Amino acid sequence: MKIFGDTNSGNCLKVKWVCDRLALPYRWIDIDTIKGETRTPEFLKLNGAGQVPTVEFDDGRTLAQSNAIIRYLARGSALIPSDAYAAAKMDEWMFWEQYSHEPYIAVCRFQMVYLKKPASELDPEKVKRGYAALARMEQHLSASRCLAGEAFSLADVSLLAYTRVAHEGGFDLTGYPSARRWIGESERALGLPAAK
Amino acid sequence: MKIFGDTNSGNCLKVKWVCDRLALPYRWIDIDTIKGETRTPEFLKLNGAGQVPTVEFDDGRTLAQSNAIIRYLARGSALIPSDAYAAAKMDEWMFWEQYSHEPYIAVCRFQMVYLKKPASELDPEKVKRGYAALARMEQHLSASRCLAGEAFSLADVSLLAYTRVAHEGGFDLTGYPSARRWIGESERALGLPAAK
Repeated sequence: MKIFGDTNSGNCLKVKWVCDRLALPYRWIDIDTIKGETRTPEFLKLNGAGQVPTVEFDDGRTLAQSNAIIRYLARGSALIPSDAYAAAKMDEWMFWEQYSHEPYIAVCRFQMVYLKKPASELDPEKVKRGYAALARMEQHLSASRCLAGEAFSLADVSLLAYTRVAHEGGFDLTGYPSARRWIGESERALGLPAAK
Repeated sequence: MKIFGDTNSGNCLKVKWVCDRLALPYRWIDIDTIKGETRTPEFLKLNGAGQVPTVEFDDGRTLAQSNAIIRYLARGSALIPSDAYAAAKMDEWMFWEQYSHEPYIAVCRFQMVYLKKPASELDPEKVKRGYAALARMEQHLSASRCLAGEAFSLADVSLLAYTRVAHEGGFDLTGYPSARRWIGESERALGLPAAK
């Protein structure tokens, strides 16, 4: 299996982390999104949406969307709860991540880290919604060890990707002790060093 | 089961359509999002994210996020492909819907229909991205009967919700014949009248 990804993208790292955790063999193909490498005719044949991560299996079939990819790769593993309702709560967090967390926290980080925009020039509405997402996680994680119950799941993988680097997008996690506790535990579950 | 929903919201209708198609009994509780009914203390107890649709099962457990809800309700039915890769392609379209389609097409429609904004005052970037989403669907549906292969699935339910009313957001589907063919077939699969 080939993973077409950009190591600066949390969405791409989700796929790498799941493969590493489950010892699935893969070849990582670096794609530089800033240089437009997702918009070449060759890449668009792999994924018409022009987005990374995209995986290509050995038989030539492809799959895109980070959360769909990790859900497929982790099928049958302990990263997906065997109880149907618990798996549905995992899905709830993963859809929420793409709709209510990533568009604010990852986008602010992208603008600061890659477009070199100062924090003071970020869209205040995006900042506000990013903090609302963090507040919701904090509230939940103050009463629950992981996002979809007590066991580490793909919901934690998915939300870890950009929450652990939220400070790079100007977000201050000082007032979010449960989220910080969960970031550390999730990093250890995946064998990752603490994000700087 | 209670469905807390707003009948003006495509995301909420997805849940209704799946229940109707699978003959799952439910009670529909009308929630007016415009009037702030998702922000009351009672509603926030059901869903801390303050969003509809939210379902409450008879045992008091709750579930949110339209695509997570329909994935749970339709488990074991023909609306989810039994082949794991086909199911993953369904998931790919459903995550893409929430990230690359709904934020543009549904949001433009919301602004025109509910906030009474004229089409000329829509954010041009949102309009452009909405058309990009329609173009991607058109390309795919020109070669495939449904989104996740040849069989009608939750991917079609999910993307039908706002594509069938895209014209209410100012989108002209004249140049998208395959998408229009698919809208008609998907409406018939769900027993819906054609959207006006």
